[in-house]
Amino acid sequence: MKEISTLWWDDELGGIRYIDQTLLPTEYAIVRCTSVDRLITAIKRLEIRGAPALGVAGGYGVALAAATCTEISYSTFTRKVQKESGRIRESRPTAVNLSWGVDRVIARMLAAPDAASAQKAALDEAKAIAAEDTRCCHAIGDYGAALLPDKCTVLTHCNAGALACSTWGTALGVIRSAVAAGKTVKVIACETRPLLQGARLTAWELARDGIDVTVITDSMAAHIMRTGTIDAVIVGADRITRDAVFNKIGTYMHAVCARYHGIPFYVAAPLSTFDATRIEREVIIEERGRDELAVVGNRTLIPDGVPVRNYAFDATPMELVSAIITERGIIRPPFDINALLSRTASNNSEP
Amino acid sequence: MKEISTLWWDDELGGIRYIDQTLLPTEYAIVRCTSVDRLITAIKRLEIRGAPALGVAGGYGVALAAATCTEISYSTFTRKVQKESGRIRESRPTAVNLSWGVDRVIARMLAAPDAASAQKAALDEAKAIAAEDTRCCHAIGDYGAALLPDKCTVLTHCNAGALACSTWGTALGVIRSAVAAGKTVKVIACETRPLLQGARLTAWELARDGIDVTVITDSMAAHIMRTGTIDAVIVGADRITRDAVFNKIGTYMHAVCARYHGIPFYVAAPLSTFDATRIEREVIIEERGRDELAVVGNRTLIPDGVPVRNYAFDATPMELVSAIITERGIIRPPFDINALLSRTASNNSEP
Repeated sequence: MKEISTLWWDDELGGIRYIDQTLLPTEYAIVRCTSVDRLITAIKRLEIRGAPALGVAGGYGVALAAATCTEISYSTFTRKVQKESGRIRESRPTAVNLSWGVDRVIARMLAAPDAASAQKAALDEAKAIAAEDTRCCHAIGDYGAALLPDKCTVLTHCNAGALACSTWGTALGVIRSAVAAGKTVKVIACETRPLLQGARLTAWELARDGIDVTVITDSMAAHIMRTGTIDAVIVGADRITRDAVFNKIGTYMHAVCARYHGIPFYVAAPLSTFDATRIEREVIIEERGRDELAVVGNRTLIPDGVPVRNYAFDATPMELVSAIITERGIIRPPFDINALLSRTASNNSEP
Repeated sequence: MKEISTLWWDDELGGIRYIDQTLLPTEYAIVRCTSVDRLITAIKRLEIRGAPALGVAGGYGVALAAATCTEISYSTFTRKVQKESGRIRESRPTAVNLSWGVDRVIARMLAAPDAASAQKAALDEAKAIAAEDTRCCHAIGDYGAALLPDKCTVLTHCNAGALACSTWGTALGVIRSAVAAGKTVKVIACETRPLLQGARLTAWELARDGIDVTVITDSMAAHIMRTGTIDAVIVGADRITRDAVFNKIGTYMHAVCARYHGIPFYVAAPLSTFDATRIEREVIIEERGRDELAVVGNRTLIPDGVPVRNYAFDATPMELVSAIITERGIIRPPFDINALLSRTASNNSEP
């Protein structure tokens, strides 16, 4: 079966095409995006979401800003593209990959001698990010698959799958690689309130690929850990600082409960998710709107006037993490990220 | 403000009237119920839910079976009423209060000399259960209120409120009594997937009474425990065995996370919730239908063909419980339930 493609550059269109993830699982639709404004809307509305996919979207976003900028003066061109890129970078604050993708393409673009070659350089670099993301996910998958027993049940939260990346996935990449290696893996997908990425997206993409998946409410995970046979928890990450893993709200709860039940808690994420410059308390956790909790479809779930808190992410301190699976290998406590990054610089071998 | 009445006997109607809890928070409707079949539907559909309210409903259900039984032969009358009562008892398997209410009214009925006096005895006993429930909730509230700081934030799950009882509530009764005693209590209500009793019912009844309430997703609780200022978790219970507290799915997760963060975890429940005859592994945990997870209003949340698990309850082992608040006082580890029950027998003083 063909691998899922989440977003890609369409040369003929001169823009980005992507799966609108807000419509899944009942509708599969590809959006044609030819303006920065539309891309920002797509990111804010979570039509495109998932940390690695946001890195790719950030890269393509700069390429799109460059491709649609008609300035001939190079200095005006770069100023305008950088301004547009800044708007993309700030469209979601927590996932580090978005700004990482934006900044990487800007840096490449600024090295070009003129506007026309800057446009080409930006697009080349954005395409390179997408291609690397695919390779990263397969490498993460292969490293992570080795951690799983030949027959196991894995609990995951949100969607760290093909839909969160260019393809294959990080946490779900580990599961796909394990299945590809002949292991028997059952997946328990937590529905992931409020936006139900687990129920809608993880269930959709695993079922599409013929992988055994069962959906539970988020609150059921601890009960199943206690009474059932969860062998591992695997999640993705939106940002990894020296002291904490930021990921979808609910991740921390699973980490606490996994520790209580002696179940390993794995994080699968590319190195672009690492933020060596910040510690937990310096990271903004995005708070989103009330309606994400209060309304589903045509149904009002909360009385008018009652407030909500809607943190999109939480932080799991490193002491609850058993291992982080990256495209360069697995790191374990005490998670010496600097050593990993220097290992990366000196050793580029893929698995 | 008048206290909420959840269900009551209407003499003029010759039947039960109750708030249909499936319609809240957008619609407040009182149902007139004059048949056992309609009552069983109401219990299965959770139009009436909450352990103490199920005790009251069970009692009124027997009274209704008796009132609508036209047999004159006493032996045929009691056989028929007991058969109908058995159907009520089995309409939900986990909450012990339902069978407790049914059995108590049957016992009183069987002591009557003829069908007509059995009808009256059943109704008298059912009304006595409802009146006791109200007194119990106020007693639980007063005992529990003493556990809360003068200014505090309390996290609760599901709805152990007036809507789960005749009135006042158990967990929310503690909060109401604390507020009535002049304490400043903020409530964090977990929405409680899949049926959202926290978002729909707890938020509705606390906001109605002017108590400060904020709704979060269930998965957000651990994050708020870690970063915020939760002073206590208070929940109700559907059944308390010697070794575990059965309550709405998600309760166990909160208990694990409360322990991890050093936050007291309180259970508020009347003695009718105690089941001294069973231990955890002898209790059936009700599993409910797929659609409760897969569909909200007009929205399909899970792809066709993907299965779910939908446990309605979980069991929290006693070692995670800080205290149980009953109408006879507070019991703490090691939770000698037999001692509490004998204390009850010898000491009937209300607080």
